[in-house]
Amino acid sequence: MTRPFRVGIAGLGTVGASVVRILSRQNDILARRLGRPVAVTAVSARDRAKDRGIDLSTLAWFDDPVELARSGEVDCVVELVGGSDGAALRTVETALSHGKHVVTANKALLAKHGLALARAAEEKGVALAFEASVAGGIPVIKTLREALPGNRVSRLYGILNGTCNYILSRMELEGLTFADCLKDAQRLGYAEADPTFDVEGFDTAHKLAILTSLAFGTEIDADAIYVEGISSITPLDLAMANELGFRIKLLGVAERTSTGIEQRVHPTMVPKSSAIAQVMGVTNAVTIDADAVKELTLIGPGAGGDATASAVVADIADVALGKSEPPFGVPARTLEKAPRAPMQRHEGGYYIRLTVHDRPGVAAGVATRMAEADISLESILQKRSETAASQDPHGRSGAPVSLVLITYAATEAAIRSAVEKISGDGLIAEPPQVIRIERE
Amino acid sequence: MTRPFRVGIAGLGTVGASVVRILSRQNDILARRLGRPVAVTAVSARDRAKDRGIDLSTLAWFDDPVELARSGEVDCVVELVGGSDGAALRTVETALSHGKHVVTANKALLAKHGLALARAAEEKGVALAFEASVAGGIPVIKTLREALPGNRVSRLYGILNGTCNYILSRMELEGLTFADCLKDAQRLGYAEADPTFDVEGFDTAHKLAILTSLAFGTEIDADAIYVEGISSITPLDLAMANELGFRIKLLGVAERTSTGIEQRVHPTMVPKSSAIAQVMGVTNAVTIDADAVKELTLIGPGAGGDATASAVVADIADVALGKSEPPFGVPARTLEKAPRAPMQRHEGGYYIRLTVHDRPGVAAGVATRMAEADISLESILQKRSETAASQDPHGRSGAPVSLVLITYAATEAAIRSAVEKISGDGLIAEPPQVIRIERE
Repeated sequence: MTRPFRVGIAGLGTVGASVVRILSRQNDILARRLGRPVAVTAVSARDRAKDRGIDLSTLAWFDDPVELARSGEVDCVVELVGGSDGAALRTVETALSHGKHVVTANKALLAKHGLALARAAEEKGVALAFEASVAGGIPVIKTLREALPGNRVSRLYGILNGTCNYILSRMELEGLTFADCLKDAQRLGYAEADPTFDVEGFDTAHKLAILTSLAFGTEIDADAIYVEGISSITPLDLAMANELGFRIKLLGVAERTSTGIEQRVHPTMVPKSSAIAQVMGVTNAVTIDADAVKELTLIGPGAGGDATASAVVADIADVALGKSEPPFGVPARTLEKAPRAPMQRHEGGYYIRLTVHDRPGVAAGVATRMAEADISLESILQKRSETAASQDPHGRSGAPVSLVLITYAATEAAIRSAVEKISGDGLIAEPPQVIRIERE
Repeated sequence: MTRPFRVGIAGLGTVGASVVRILSRQNDILARRLGRPVAVTAVSARDRAKDRGIDLSTLAWFDDPVELARSGEVDCVVELVGGSDGAALRTVETALSHGKHVVTANKALLAKHGLALARAAEEKGVALAFEASVAGGIPVIKTLREALPGNRVSRLYGILNGTCNYILSRMELEGLTFADCLKDAQRLGYAEADPTFDVEGFDTAHKLAILTSLAFGTEIDADAIYVEGISSITPLDLAMANELGFRIKLLGVAERTSTGIEQRVHPTMVPKSSAIAQVMGVTNAVTIDADAVKELTLIGPGAGGDATASAVVADIADVALGKSEPPFGVPARTLEKAPRAPMQRHEGGYYIRLTVHDRPGVAAGVATRMAEADISLESILQKRSETAASQDPHGRSGAPVSLVLITYAATEAAIRSAVEKISGDGLIAEPPQVIRIERE
């Protein structure tokens, strides 16, 4: 019998425990596939006594994951410690410098140190695999790295955070507020006690940074990402979107433009008929636009112990097979430093919801400001609030009403300037809501 | 400079010409990725003089693809000849026996000879890659073979034939008949002059046979597939489906059941809310149900020169990288001979549309026959045809009306027996329409 491929697991939370269980359950098929068995030989976690429903008695135990990474007992270190620096970084660096393969699910680590770690792995001729770092069980890393070498990618966009999609789905389906849905998501374990990282878009940005690098062959540049979260979205926006044929999703979008690579995370109106609009709840999805394949969409679970472990195990199998390609598809030193396309130069359609005073001339005033900024309007929708209508059935109460504009393609700079002027004109009663539209 | 990876292309139709173009266009990125360039060194086709918009002057020309497969000028033979036997088979066999890697888009060849060819490739230690054989540009082969070793697949189903999906989409959206849509599809080049192979489900069956083997680790068994095409679907069925919350798609379904592996191709009612129901036109899609990842759906172009070439080029890159796994993920000799689950034992929901004589007691007679066969009904819908209603507004004209039954899970055997008895009772005026329902 061939020597087993020895795996050390650093971090035994939900994902780590599931990896141990899956490797045991799939033992036979993995041995057939790889020509040798996969054996977990060492683990590391904070609390040795905790019951995880798995038998650890035969495995080497390390209190310190860095010690595990250094151990002669493992060929491959699975880093599930988490965090962009600290123990996770030291564990991965130590494993690579000791010539061990690394599999990680750590998007924060990769978004910050991915390029340096890829270089270190390539120097040592070992693998750095990270399918589980983006979109859980969806093989989007493999697809971008291995399935599209015949393509030039022009754009990718995805629902990369299940918490946000869960909240937006429930807000839409049940007409609830963001705050209420967030509370429910927290109660159900879909959102953290401090939800900032998820709902303000930072988690999506980390994942997007990784996908962008793979899609465009560029150095990871997480700092270049424009980030806007979903906390300002209201049930009214979702209702308006519905009426106009859209859904609102928190998307991460990366696009090749004439000024460089544009990377942005923000609530986005997508046509109801698009594949990505159908994706509800905690599910994730990624659409890739490329010249040869045109449009490819992958939909699946973005989180959860088993789904994430599924991606970790796929990486372990690839590494055990000795697949030798560079972590980002091409050697890290050949990744391009792409110019950042500034957000001000972004071009696209916009949804602008203004809460205006219901007075004669307001709509005209708004339309004039848009025309001055050279912005063409695709549609205008005025909605009186029910209370305003009941107070004054003849209109012109001066009470606030919603005025929704859908623009044709315009630049971010033009939109911001027009909205600023409308605010300055004293036409609006509340801060304006601006949501970008992404077409198929 | 390292010696290039030398590719010979047998078959220069739309796909072959696109492969040549893409390899040239992506020359630089492929060289970076693979550490050496990819060079097309030889081609074979029927007509040397034909203008394909590509420069063939520097390439070795072979009138006979088998000669190309034998040539010392190539490391990898790309078989795009087509057909389950004949020149295609001889080309692939010759290439493998001469120790050359093979990339093919030929589903008919694989459905019939895939197991033997995989064995031959493994014996010689060369690759047999066939991403392009199923669902064009969608990396479903790679996903099943490489992304799911941590999973036990329980079911997969897919829209694998763009022609059928185009026809069904247009029938649904425009209320057209099958015959009219087929004519249009032929005019637009989406359907062959002899459309049997596509519309009667055989093309889908070939592709399903390949996916089943990968998903379940079983020997290809195309003969076991139950096949039913879409030519009997009427606009009325599509309208009824719509009313009941379904769409009709031609699906290939493979499922692990208690009696074995069930493989079937037939028009299928899918819930409108499912990801696969959204897939319209010539687009393909595959959904995989598996224990760890739960549900994964891939959507993309199922045909077309560039999309198919995209998959061919991805295979060439993998082969050039020396990826060494067996063609079906595990060694061909370890693929299981799975018992065939007989179609009669299939269990699921059914849509049954009966054209009954509009007389008292008919519905009761039908319901009794269903009850005798132990079939529970989820809903019953009776629709009088407009002509019948205009002739006799009080009903009971004796003219035919549609009676639609949706059943809870029942066996194929029970359904067939009940429908046969209903026919025998003289209750129906036309042959019954039976469409299986596939739930998420």
